[in-house]
Amino acid sequence: MIVLNYLLGYENLKIYQDTDMFHFSLDSVLLPNFVTINQKTKKILDIGTGNAVIPMILSTRTKANITGVEIQEKSFQLGEQSIIYNHLEKQISLIHSDIKDYANTCESDTYDVITCNPPFFKVEEQSHLNDKDEKTIARHEVALTLEDIMKVSKKILKNNGLLAIVHRPERLLDILTFMREYNIEPKKIQFVYPKQKKEANIVLVEGSKNGKKGLKILPPIYAHEDNGNYTKEVQSYFVRGENCVTEEL
Amino acid sequence: MIVLNYLLGYENLKIYQDTDMFHFSLDSVLLPNFVTINQKTKKILDIGTGNAVIPMILSTRTKANITGVEIQEKSFQLGEQSIIYNHLEKQISLIHSDIKDYANTCESDTYDVITCNPPFFKVEEQSHLNDKDEKTIARHEVALTLEDIMKVSKKILKNNGLLAIVHRPERLLDILTFMREYNIEPKKIQFVYPKQKKEANIVLVEGSKNGKKGLKILPPIYAHEDNGNYTKEVQSYFVRGENCVTEEL
Repeated sequence: MIVLNYLLGYENLKIYQDTDMFHFSLDSVLLPNFVTINQKTKKILDIGTGNAVIPMILSTRTKANITGVEIQEKSFQLGEQSIIYNHLEKQISLIHSDIKDYANTCESDTYDVITCNPPFFKVEEQSHLNDKDEKTIARHEVALTLEDIMKVSKKILKNNGLLAIVHRPERLLDILTFMREYNIEPKKIQFVYPKQKKEANIVLVEGSKNGKKGLKILPPIYAHEDNGNYTKEVQSYFVRGENCVTEEL
Repeated sequence: MIVLNYLLGYENLKIYQDTDMFHFSLDSVLLPNFVTINQKTKKILDIGTGNAVIPMILSTRTKANITGVEIQEKSFQLGEQSIIYNHLEKQISLIHSDIKDYANTCESDTYDVITCNPPFFKVEEQSHLNDKDEKTIARHEVALTLEDIMKVSKKILKNNGLLAIVHRPERLLDILTFMREYNIEPKKIQFVYPKQKKEANIVLVEGSKNGKKGLKILPPIYAHEDNGNYTKEVQSYFVRGENCVTEEL
């Protein structure tokens, strides 16, 4: 079923989602609020943009030109529809491509900022995932690995350009190791905890291409109050697909 | 001036400190509360033990045998006095040595747990530190570098033994990189924030020699309330040298 959802906290934005597909979550909303954007930010790339939720939220923070690259046809189509619906065609362009192919054709040193909410699950050798399946591609590292992201970013980020990524804390060490391997120096990290006194379950990391050493750990974000409600902080930018007004199409 | 301080939260412990020297801080109290200790923990080593505050606090959590190694004569002497004062001679032994020399003479695979509150400041090439100065040795990496700690730990930790370290978040990447280089897999990290909505200023890291991958980010610790008082959590184990009862000697 394809539905049109309001982005909570973004009254002017609506987004098309296929409820049968992997749809966006807290991660996709945290990332565009975490990444450093300033007046010098002219060109932004979102890798694996899905139905373009990250570019759309970024458009509320910046006038920069935003490109989203998505490998999956259906997600790409939904993204296109959302962009047209929200009259964002001038600011956001979507490209239906594998990011690795796109990076090969793209000039070096093109982007000020790259964002990426990548597939979270490592593919184990023993796994029998169907790598044609849409949810598999969105969730597992079959089409895009952490190392791919770093390699692409190293090429197409400008000098001192920023890569911001959202992931699970279990992979933090791999992210940091790969970043340094590809000369993207980690500069700020923020952890998201499901509630007080719990271990973090989301991590946001930003690194700078050829950046100087110097890491900051931002204040923690809590997703939920003890009673299970979203915290005010998260409510202010979380898209509550399950509660929000939807129009069936 | 040498004073005898109560360890707040440890009513039965007192510690000798020289107020002219580098004396223990929040870090030295957080670390022995952070490190994983269980019934299988039989032998613990504290590297750069200073006046033995970490072994003394550890003694409240475990019956394991604790060794502290300290390079500086004065700190070592104060530690000895404190241990005798607190009748902990049977559980805690101090060694007056450079940890690198000690590790050379020590058998491999000896310790279940190593703790270390190392000097925090990197020595820059341009610096003109007096490396004979006691505060310099306690605070700067003149006698003990991060890499030294990992090298020593790799040798004298048992297989799956734990290294727990307290440091500044700016050095987190170096710690994690060195740990992996010396086969000490980071397993848990905890950040300490001076208060809500501030960046972290202390990090606690524990790794396991030849351990499996899998990192946990523990719930954050806040040091202070908004009004500047210590939080209850920290009050429960912080040594407030400035407020506690002291006996001048």
